[in-house]
Amino acid sequence: MSRRRPRPDGAEVVYGRNPVRELLAAGRREVHEVVALPQLAGEPWLAGADVRTAGRDELGRIAGTADHQGVVALTGAYPYAEPAELLARPGPVVCLDGAQDPRNLGAIARVAEAAGAAGIVIQRRGSPGVTPVVAKASAGAVEHLAIARVGSMVAFLHDARGGGRLAIGAHPDGAEDYRALAWPRDVLLVMGAEGEGLRPRVRESCDHLARIPMAGRVASLNISVATALLLYETLRT
Amino acid sequence: MSRRRPRPDGAEVVYGRNPVRELLAAGRREVHEVVALPQLAGEPWLAGADVRTAGRDELGRIAGTADHQGVVALTGAYPYAEPAELLARPGPVVCLDGAQDPRNLGAIARVAEAAGAAGIVIQRRGSPGVTPVVAKASAGAVEHLAIARVGSMVAFLHDARGGGRLAIGAHPDGAEDYRALAWPRDVLLVMGAEGEGLRPRVRESCDHLARIPMAGRVASLNISVATALLLYETLRT
Repeated sequence: MSRRRPRPDGAEVVYGRNPVRELLAAGRREVHEVVALPQLAGEPWLAGADVRTAGRDELGRIAGTADHQGVVALTGAYPYAEPAELLARPGPVVCLDGAQDPRNLGAIARVAEAAGAAGIVIQRRGSPGVTPVVAKASAGAVEHLAIARVGSMVAFLHDARGGGRLAIGAHPDGAEDYRALAWPRDVLLVMGAEGEGLRPRVRESCDHLARIPMAGRVASLNISVATALLLYETLRT
Repeated sequence: MSRRRPRPDGAEVVYGRNPVRELLAAGRREVHEVVALPQLAGEPWLAGADVRTAGRDELGRIAGTADHQGVVALTGAYPYAEPAELLARPGPVVCLDGAQDPRNLGAIARVAEAAGAAGIVIQRRGSPGVTPVVAKASAGAVEHLAIARVGSMVAFLHDARGGGRLAIGAHPDGAEDYRALAWPRDVLLVMGAEGEGLRPRVRESCDHLARIPMAGRVASLNISVATALLLYETLRT
């Protein structure tokens, strides 16, 4: 009980009720082990899984946090998609420029999945990738969503626009009110890091820069909220 | 350095850069003391304040968390508004039914302030009130926003509708797509607790129940995201 179990090579930890439930429901990645509190082992969403029971402390040691909600899974690596796969799917692609806070990345994934996005593109450098914190903040949405990593966001946008996609970037000083733009369903929605915005070369890679009007004194929205407002525009027409 | 300073009677703690900055900018409540790391004491937004410097550990003890970002203020009690004051202002009123998670309440306050809402109504019972966690999650928006507490949400909605306001509740099985409804700027937007929704009597107190379409497999949005989508409808007409 007091020893952390050795993890199979390259295994990742997913913790929390929603993340583990969606992991099992998606069936996309190998599951080495599911560990749960005895009182959770009989839950219907754990029915198909081979569940080992353990106490709260052992779960905390495996998860590396007390925020495990009684269940942890040891799994294969997160199955990133290829950028080309995302572009072959219908729906908007959310392109995240710069370094994103893991909690924000998770919240954006939850929004993107709910809005039926084709997926999310993140930068390899500076991005946390899909960590357990990201999976938890996404309420498990990362298990159903295609997430691809690129070396250069500018190069990705160049290629995708060459293939006929329109890129709209979010910018507080954008020339166009987001409500006045026509949002094709397969738009490339380009979002900067919270508090930093789009880098100049990424901004120049956008066909339009959209502005969300702010009526208050604290002049910003959380990035997942801004992403939701803009993504849902693609569902309006 | 190792002793926590006694707090003046009824004093509250506000921590974090945005919360303390907005607290000082709003000037709505008494500030007993501002404590900051030496390297922050010269920041322009602290210019008018009488700042005592302290180390990271002492700040952590005052704030009760390591999440203080180098600055803490001891202040008078949060200045709640009266429900009637909110109804006398222009703009939508966000009515939060049930128990709200503090982080969600803060995120909703940030959204409401950005969308120019008249304010937020919370229930006295079951709600955390405006705690330091709420202030931090709101990025300081609670300092500029009117927040009122009511004993009964049903009674508040009854009175407000009697005064001519339209109440629209958010509900996953709502009869009406939110995009098809006419949203008056002074709507009462009624939101339930995340994962629980509106209680039956509150649902019955709404003129309409609005549904946000979900295109994915993880069938929910964070409550602050849903609040943003609906509040921004009042800015469309």
